[in-house]
Amino acid sequence: MNAEIIAVGSELLTPFRQDTNSLYLTEKLNTLGVEVSFKTIVGDNLKDIVRVTKAALSRSDILIFSGGLGPTEDDLTREAVAQTLGLHLKRDPDIVQAIERRFTEHGWKMSPNNVKQADVISGATVLPNANGTAPGQWIGGRSDGREKLVVLLPGPPHELKALFESSVLERLRAKVPKQSLAARVIKITGMGESACDARVAPIYKRFTDVDTTILAAPGEIQLHVHTRKDSDEAANNRLDELVGLIEEELGDNVYSDNGDSLEQIVSYFLQMRDATLSVAESCTGGLVAERLTSVSGSSRYFIGGAVVYSNELKTQLADVPADLIDVYGAVSEQVARALAEGIRKKCGTTLGLGVTGVAGPTGGSAEKPVGLVFHALASEGGTEVIKRNFPGDRARIRWFASQQALDMVRRKLM
Amino acid sequence: MNAEIIAVGSELLTPFRQDTNSLYLTEKLNTLGVEVSFKTIVGDNLKDIVRVTKAALSRSDILIFSGGLGPTEDDLTREAVAQTLGLHLKRDPDIVQAIERRFTEHGWKMSPNNVKQADVISGATVLPNANGTAPGQWIGGRSDGREKLVVLLPGPPHELKALFESSVLERLRAKVPKQSLAARVIKITGMGESACDARVAPIYKRFTDVDTTILAAPGEIQLHVHTRKDSDEAANNRLDELVGLIEEELGDNVYSDNGDSLEQIVSYFLQMRDATLSVAESCTGGLVAERLTSVSGSSRYFIGGAVVYSNELKTQLADVPADLIDVYGAVSEQVARALAEGIRKKCGTTLGLGVTGVAGPTGGSAEKPVGLVFHALASEGGTEVIKRNFPGDRARIRWFASQQALDMVRRKLM
Repeated sequence: MNAEIIAVGSELLTPFRQDTNSLYLTEKLNTLGVEVSFKTIVGDNLKDIVRVTKAALSRSDILIFSGGLGPTEDDLTREAVAQTLGLHLKRDPDIVQAIERRFTEHGWKMSPNNVKQADVISGATVLPNANGTAPGQWIGGRSDGREKLVVLLPGPPHELKALFESSVLERLRAKVPKQSLAARVIKITGMGESACDARVAPIYKRFTDVDTTILAAPGEIQLHVHTRKDSDEAANNRLDELVGLIEEELGDNVYSDNGDSLEQIVSYFLQMRDATLSVAESCTGGLVAERLTSVSGSSRYFIGGAVVYSNELKTQLADVPADLIDVYGAVSEQVARALAEGIRKKCGTTLGLGVTGVAGPTGGSAEKPVGLVFHALASEGGTEVIKRNFPGDRARIRWFASQQALDMVRRKLM
Repeated sequence: MNAEIIAVGSELLTPFRQDTNSLYLTEKLNTLGVEVSFKTIVGDNLKDIVRVTKAALSRSDILIFSGGLGPTEDDLTREAVAQTLGLHLKRDPDIVQAIERRFTEHGWKMSPNNVKQADVISGATVLPNANGTAPGQWIGGRSDGREKLVVLLPGPPHELKALFESSVLERLRAKVPKQSLAARVIKITGMGESACDARVAPIYKRFTDVDTTILAAPGEIQLHVHTRKDSDEAANNRLDELVGLIEEELGDNVYSDNGDSLEQIVSYFLQMRDATLSVAESCTGGLVAERLTSVSGSSRYFIGGAVVYSNELKTQLADVPADLIDVYGAVSEQVARALAEGIRKKCGTTLGLGVTGVAGPTGGSAEKPVGLVFHALASEGGTEVIKRNFPGDRARIRWFASQQALDMVRRKLM
């Protein structure tokens, strides 16, 4: 069975927005052994959505719609799908009540247009949406003598994902032929894409039954591998074998083989070592702290930190001696070291991180160009400093720096 | 005339890669007054590309293909388009020579499959590719009694962009009716999507010559409006009129009518008022500081801040009295107020922000559930506190809280 993903929304036909739900949906469909053959993006226009739905029914077995289920007049997916399938819409009083309840619970007043979200295509199974007002819908049937599945999902990614996990995944699994597909994402720091590929290509090329894609993300390389076999065990064993060889080749540079983020890995290590961490950041402006605290439960090991943009604050919150800044400048190995040591002492943590650099686009000089960043990690045994010159714009430089800082913590605790 | 963008490549149907060329192409087409009505993504499969081409010809005037022009067996765009249009492919000896020359110049040996890239659809204009071996192709004709344009472009973004600028843009301009298209993005905080739509729909519906899309993003609503007229002036005047009426209706809730981010707007206001800002964050964990410092030049008004996860650190870095935390708890109006006032005093800034709450998923209680956040803004005139109960997961709650905190600064300075 093949699938088509249809994203509905005029904003997705502007230069400003992109459909990202399809990446998530593709990943989930692939785990069921279902491949995506087409992706279509269409605006909030009834005639156009009908056209697209017709074309999709003629070429795909599973149609997954995202978007166009909201309360406004622009939200037309229900209407278009019903019209294409020759079915009616019926307002479901239970859903109307659920929407009203949701508004009441949040202390909001429901405007009348919201009831539109309770319109259900006749024969459809309603898929409850725990995170929003518009429920999903699941319609099964036959067209051109073939079994077809049409699934309507809300556009907001957190609603779509939760709804897919809770109500769509298992329903789909029951409908598609059983296949075992295994996939892994190996994440690598400390090396470039071509250097990495030169070392791992001789390994993965021997695994002709495994699909391997190498992707460069800012501050890391990702190797995506997947294979399909007759059983989960066979698929997983085959990937274990490949991943084992790659990890052997790349050593410490591999930080995850299950897709975990670097902040999640740092979280595991800190908890495993019963260690605590504090951060004093200048050029990253809170990004390192933000990434650390994005992990649930981070209060167990992350005590806090200081965002010290001004020189005075570097002294006041992280105890950096003012004369050190005068002599070496705020962007220097010495100040990075003092930030890490100062914040560690102030917060009484096992480890202290300090980051200072030039994020740009302004503020660079011949001696200290945009992209120059010093990262320091203080511990009982002493302080390590890493100097880097990152390429790219402000956002990339800040991201690279946060990645380097977190990676120092990981390597320290390994 | 409307356009459809068709991206060809099986890698674009995996969870790892996305078609980004279409954003660039959409922007360029919009400047010509051409709207993109559909985007389609299809794999390297002849039958599928033919199907997609047929559907596109039936609904769109201009078809722009990207990808599938390379030398491998998987590159099938030329074949599929020729087959759909009922035209032949002819190998062009001049292009063969040009490809051979390109290889010789780079000191490479040409493998025989490269000559495939010299196949030209009969009647097509060849568009030279300065950055790669595969030229583009331009085919004009009639189908279903309508003028149709089919353009084939190479997939690598730097080749596609250079080729579009040099050979497609002006050719297209000569073909499409002279039109001027203007677009705006109005950003709104402090109200929900349906409440917002209920107030603005009566206005934008009177502007039948303007397309309006309403979008809910976390913590804000966006209204995308665009129109086309005979002149730039007429288009801009018409949007000025609509935007003016919407701003009048929504007042302070509109924070931008040119797409600027909230942190960018806060940046303008702080500089305009010659004001400075500091931040003490608990549940947002650095996100507010990170957003503020993502704006280039933010060191002019953002002095710094503290990420105070532990109670001790709230006292140490932001001078929150320890007994206040004991009596009211870390998540309380009193502690939010003390955070804002403490950090403001410590940093000597015009304004001080304090944020404390329960980001979840753990740590909630009946009295203080997940999503409860207190936001405080301290200034010379006193301290304002806003209590909110945000829905969603950890990432959304943190984002909502950062949005609310920044919005308090904006409203204070307006």
